[in-house]
Amino acid sequence: MAIDSRNFQAPKGTRDFYPQDMAVRRYIENVWRTTSINHGFDEVEGPMFEDLDLYTHKSGPGIVSELFQVFSGKDKAEIEQIQKTGQAPFALRPEFTPTLARMVAAKAAELPRPIKWFAIPQHFRAERPQRGRLREFLQWNVDFIGDDSPKADAEVIATAVVALKSLGLGPNSVRVKVSHRHAVAALLRKAGVIEENLQVAMELLDRRNRMSALDVQSHASTIGLDIHSFDRMAQDAVLLRGSTLGGVKILRNQVHELVGDIYLVLDLKEELRTLGVADWCDWDFSIVRGLAYYTGTVFEIHEASGAERAIAGGGRYDNLIESFGGPKLPACGFGMGDVVLGLVLKDNLLLNPEKCTKRPHAFVISAGQDAADAELPGLVASLRRAGFHVRHSYKASRDIGKQLAEARKCFAIAAVILGDKLEDRLVEFKDLDAQSQETIAIDAISVKLKEVIRRNDDSK
Amino acid sequence: MAIDSRNFQAPKGTRDFYPQDMAVRRYIENVWRTTSINHGFDEVEGPMFEDLDLYTHKSGPGIVSELFQVFSGKDKAEIEQIQKTGQAPFALRPEFTPTLARMVAAKAAELPRPIKWFAIPQHFRAERPQRGRLREFLQWNVDFIGDDSPKADAEVIATAVVALKSLGLGPNSVRVKVSHRHAVAALLRKAGVIEENLQVAMELLDRRNRMSALDVQSHASTIGLDIHSFDRMAQDAVLLRGSTLGGVKILRNQVHELVGDIYLVLDLKEELRTLGVADWCDWDFSIVRGLAYYTGTVFEIHEASGAERAIAGGGRYDNLIESFGGPKLPACGFGMGDVVLGLVLKDNLLLNPEKCTKRPHAFVISAGQDAADAELPGLVASLRRAGFHVRHSYKASRDIGKQLAEARKCFAIAAVILGDKLEDRLVEFKDLDAQSQETIAIDAISVKLKEVIRRNDDSK
Repeated sequence: MAIDSRNFQAPKGTRDFYPQDMAVRRYIENVWRTTSINHGFDEVEGPMFEDLDLYTHKSGPGIVSELFQVFSGKDKAEIEQIQKTGQAPFALRPEFTPTLARMVAAKAAELPRPIKWFAIPQHFRAERPQRGRLREFLQWNVDFIGDDSPKADAEVIATAVVALKSLGLGPNSVRVKVSHRHAVAALLRKAGVIEENLQVAMELLDRRNRMSALDVQSHASTIGLDIHSFDRMAQDAVLLRGSTLGGVKILRNQVHELVGDIYLVLDLKEELRTLGVADWCDWDFSIVRGLAYYTGTVFEIHEASGAERAIAGGGRYDNLIESFGGPKLPACGFGMGDVVLGLVLKDNLLLNPEKCTKRPHAFVISAGQDAADAELPGLVASLRRAGFHVRHSYKASRDIGKQLAEARKCFAIAAVILGDKLEDRLVEFKDLDAQSQETIAIDAISVKLKEVIRRNDDSK
Repeated sequence: MAIDSRNFQAPKGTRDFYPQDMAVRRYIENVWRTTSINHGFDEVEGPMFEDLDLYTHKSGPGIVSELFQVFSGKDKAEIEQIQKTGQAPFALRPEFTPTLARMVAAKAAELPRPIKWFAIPQHFRAERPQRGRLREFLQWNVDFIGDDSPKADAEVIATAVVALKSLGLGPNSVRVKVSHRHAVAALLRKAGVIEENLQVAMELLDRRNRMSALDVQSHASTIGLDIHSFDRMAQDAVLLRGSTLGGVKILRNQVHELVGDIYLVLDLKEELRTLGVADWCDWDFSIVRGLAYYTGTVFEIHEASGAERAIAGGGRYDNLIESFGGPKLPACGFGMGDVVLGLVLKDNLLLNPEKCTKRPHAFVISAGQDAADAELPGLVASLRRAGFHVRHSYKASRDIGKQLAEARKCFAIAAVILGDKLEDRLVEFKDLDAQSQETIAIDAISVKLKEVIRRNDDSK
């Protein structure tokens, strides 16, 4: 048969995950998942695509050009709709919050409260790919719904921090910048912005690092915002950063003077201290988050040097569930993407292969005798059926040293060598971490493996 | 602010995974992943959408109407293309094999051989949703590339079987039906089909269970296929099913007579025996698999009663990598979807909540004293920071019995009760499986938890 051969590539801004890339991805996902579960969040998922209206309902028609649109090739009506309107019925999800709000709204009456959910969905944005920003990415979402207290804000932030800590990062390498929409609004009012322009001013603050100083200045003046005065006040407010618990009373007055009644901000600080993560957090009242639906606390997590885009962002969105047909339910949460986080972990040398790889429990070696070659496949299969991760060489060489090198290369915990003693049903068992070796009965391999695996688990 | 409230639903044929649904999904995925890794396969992933051409290249233009098509809303040219041609540049992946072939072809020179990969991607098909078939589903893919021997076929089949066994199924509830394209072709030739009609005849065999007997008969006669004669021969061939190893020689003659030189089939049988899964497998030469790219062994896994669609299907595809611009590399693999498997597990009562849930290590209870209430959040947070899965009640009640009931409901392994003895830094520690209780120092909780968790792991 003649082969009609052709080369294809992955679409622009998407990724192929070869085994080493996938090991890193699963390692990060596992830390996200375990941390969420440890903090009492339950995992949820939704469809990869949703009604396009779900996104315009939340973000306005402007979002359409940022979306990948989807239609069924089977349905003539859908194709005709696009031909007529230029718009498809579905969109690949650009974020998880609308799906979450829809799911909560649909079952609000029967779900136990509070609703503590996490998800690790893939997202899609029709943007120009650049460093830290792709067209397809993973995003860890953590949401605490049904609690309007700073306790919930703090728990959500603590969950993010504990995951970053588990990944090897520390408060010197990443910082949580905490702000509050009320505080930012108060500062903006003091800097000359009238009520109707507050939302526009917040959007300007959110985008300012991607604009020239001149553009910021010019946009600011059109809405009456004295940007220098704002920055001066925000910097003063940031003095809160270093506050100790004893200093809270003084700060309370200072803050009250600056930005009005924002006791929530100080309560949040105390909650963060209770949860043991206050040393990762700074106040930064120039943080507003772009999305219009945030209503209170907002925060971003950045690499300490500020070199990369935000690692994570989130906040309180107390009106969103209601806007998707649900009851009025206070909520807060965050999203953390895999792209920027991956860059930060790589820059901090925190992604070594051994840590990300699932270590084989045993690497089975034939010393080359016919009996050993014949025994190997059945032994490997029986150990796998018993639940062990077992590998062996596919190379022609029966050189024991070369096979042991292969075992070490894939980080095997133990090696089992089938050789001359096989006629007495004996094998060599080599603990590759302890570098010890002993002759054991072939039937004792399982028990021996469990011992070595347990020792390995304990030493973590 | 007036809320513009609106109800939305998940698109037809897609699923919302609430916590209990997601627990089941992750349980199945974990068994798939662990079994793959134990068998020496490495995980890979690709983009959620690919160039639409990738699929028409492999399956012909007919596939377009089965696809969800994708385009960027940012790119005017893409919208104009659809308006002109009715066809978008990208498609949501309906299967993983084209992505796999593309990825192997792109790095064929540098990848170590054999290439043993697995993936658990989501797939999308623009079909009418029905029992066992949705528009969005998960599919476990296992592929063994670079080995043309029956050993590879057998290892791939064994990997599927071991996963089903881990999920609680046995050879009485599911059967692997093994066939070989050469054998089916030989039987079809004997039943009157000429060479040019073989592919059409195989497609007919693949679709026959979804057609009326009359339609099958009528299509068969147009290609000269004596369907009754074929069935009789296929049934005779199926007598291989009960063969013992001793009977192989007789069977070899019997098979040779029936379908020509198909020693590969019998060698496969011996390999399946070596890997300890022969008792799950039957020969069934009416199995052909619909896709044109299979070249040798093909197999399907069915619920024993035959009531559901196939749980899995796969086979050998020795020309596919080459057709995607790679070298000529023999390959075999299978796909197993989550929808039919989920139905079969449910019907067999194999999805109880306790098995699918991540059990909390500790449920922390306040007996209601102010000191206990004050201690709880910090204790919970410190245990979580130490890597434990910790929950507590969000209810107002401080009744210990009610809180213990809540602990048992979420399958917590232990309960920690903060009460009167807190002033001496003592707590009650309750092992909820062993139903034993003791008073311990608050600082000893971690050590005690590790003991109880280990006991729990050992009893699995």
